[in-house]
Amino acid sequence: MISDKMNIFPEKFETYMEQLVPRSGRGTPQIDEAMRYSLFAGGKRLRPMLMAASYEAFSGSLWEDDKTLLAFMTALEMIHTYSLIHDDLPAMDDDDFRRGKKTNHIVFGEDMAILAGDGLLNGAFEVMAQAVQDADARQAQALQAMTYIARTAGVRGMIGGQVIDVTGTGNDEKSLLVMYQKKTGALLAAALTAGAILGGAGRSDQRIMGIVALKAGMAYQIQDDILDVAGNEEETGKPVGSDEKRNQITYVKLKGLDQSRMDADRYLDEAIGALQRIHGQPADLTAIFKSLIGRSK
Amino acid sequence: MISDKMNIFPEKFETYMEQLVPRSGRGTPQIDEAMRYSLFAGGKRLRPMLMAASYEAFSGSLWEDDKTLLAFMTALEMIHTYSLIHDDLPAMDDDDFRRGKKTNHIVFGEDMAILAGDGLLNGAFEVMAQAVQDADARQAQALQAMTYIARTAGVRGMIGGQVIDVTGTGNDEKSLLVMYQKKTGALLAAALTAGAILGGAGRSDQRIMGIVALKAGMAYQIQDDILDVAGNEEETGKPVGSDEKRNQITYVKLKGLDQSRMDADRYLDEAIGALQRIHGQPADLTAIFKSLIGRSK
Repeated sequence: MISDKMNIFPEKFETYMEQLVPRSGRGTPQIDEAMRYSLFAGGKRLRPMLMAASYEAFSGSLWEDDKTLLAFMTALEMIHTYSLIHDDLPAMDDDDFRRGKKTNHIVFGEDMAILAGDGLLNGAFEVMAQAVQDADARQAQALQAMTYIARTAGVRGMIGGQVIDVTGTGNDEKSLLVMYQKKTGALLAAALTAGAILGGAGRSDQRIMGIVALKAGMAYQIQDDILDVAGNEEETGKPVGSDEKRNQITYVKLKGLDQSRMDADRYLDEAIGALQRIHGQPADLTAIFKSLIGRSK
Repeated sequence: MISDKMNIFPEKFETYMEQLVPRSGRGTPQIDEAMRYSLFAGGKRLRPMLMAASYEAFSGSLWEDDKTLLAFMTALEMIHTYSLIHDDLPAMDDDDFRRGKKTNHIVFGEDMAILAGDGLLNGAFEVMAQAVQDADARQAQALQAMTYIARTAGVRGMIGGQVIDVTGTGNDEKSLLVMYQKKTGALLAAALTAGAILGGAGRSDQRIMGIVALKAGMAYQIQDDILDVAGNEEETGKPVGSDEKRNQITYVKLKGLDQSRMDADRYLDEAIGALQRIHGQPADLTAIFKSLIGRSK
């Protein structure tokens, strides 16, 4: 049960991840250093943890025992990390700090940060393609999981969310919600659905996990906005008020703090409610949602 | 036979490619426009053409009749195009023109150019993953081709070559050659080897195609250096002397123009010589090499 050991999960997962991330070989140690700097920067590993919990909910097996799953968990964290590196670039959000550490381009330069992001994105597919090849009898499932992740990470999913963000078209409630769904919800959907697929879930359960992800993603993103005005720097790893400083529309600005708190709770309740409909064991995932996403309470 | 119709290949291939490139859907037309601007900027389609010719050499079938192959040709051109967009960015080579047209970030802004590159790289794997899923009896071959492309495009291949380039560690002959092999040779190897795999080539022929690609890549890159000092702007699509301007080490600077021409010819001869060892029909590929890579003669 992952939820019993959530606090040790990130460290434990890193020992597996360390072995799976591709290395460049002789002559270009800079790119390995740059990729690993951000990949091992103390992230919460929310997406791999959700993938593992979703897998366990359907398979009844332990996440650590499944090499295919470990590869996919690693790949998803690599995709998440590349998106953060590129998002922090001067031409994008121009952030100097992330999780309390200097951002990639501050340490390695903009050129290397662009390449480190490219290397992580490409590397995620190297890891998944190899995992599919090695998946033997579960090759069809692994292939389906990879295809799903590719789609949710792309221009119809996460990258599309970034586009709404940088073009400033997310300035009313409706488009802000679409942006949240794509920017955050898409990769959470990738985590939960890929975990479900690899855990043997049927089509209807896969669809339910997609809905759960969208609701949980909304709750998570609204919490993030709440923490930006009401949290403290130690907790979020970035300066309080950084959204405000960039003059960015947020859920809290549109709805106010009280309504935002109520809406975040409502989305979380809806996610947890939908979870109870799966043909599996939702208890563990429910506990993780309450602990990690309901974090402002 | 592709070599009979080389001049119409780029246009013909584009009609297929147009249908295969993922679109972002409603709300984010900017990213589709940015991706397509560079993807349909009049490239020679060297890599897809080589993949098609390698496929035909082993399969004896026409490239246009194979949907799996068309998807892989599209994906490889998407990978090549993303690398050009990111390479042209101000933090990298800072180029304003490419193929006689304004570069992506000049037209769409740096933020959108970064995302367009990310979208093309991710999209290439969306296209390949879907093609593997749809490949039926040839799924194992398609999966092997995708894994090969993922590896050659990544930090051990093309991205590694970019790292050598931006860190300026390619300043002696040995590391310049390694940079050329990775930056150019890796994707040519992807083209020729993936085409061979999809065409049904055996392991030993796949290995030969890897060697052919390395030799042809060297010839191609040295020609590129020669054209930069001796070519004309119309032919190369970029200002003559642009390498000189950036104070970049090139093969011509190390060896002089005459020796460079001899070496390019030698590499081309070696590529064509190795080609004759395959269990297939090398005539078409040989003609393409002579026409496209031996272009300064």
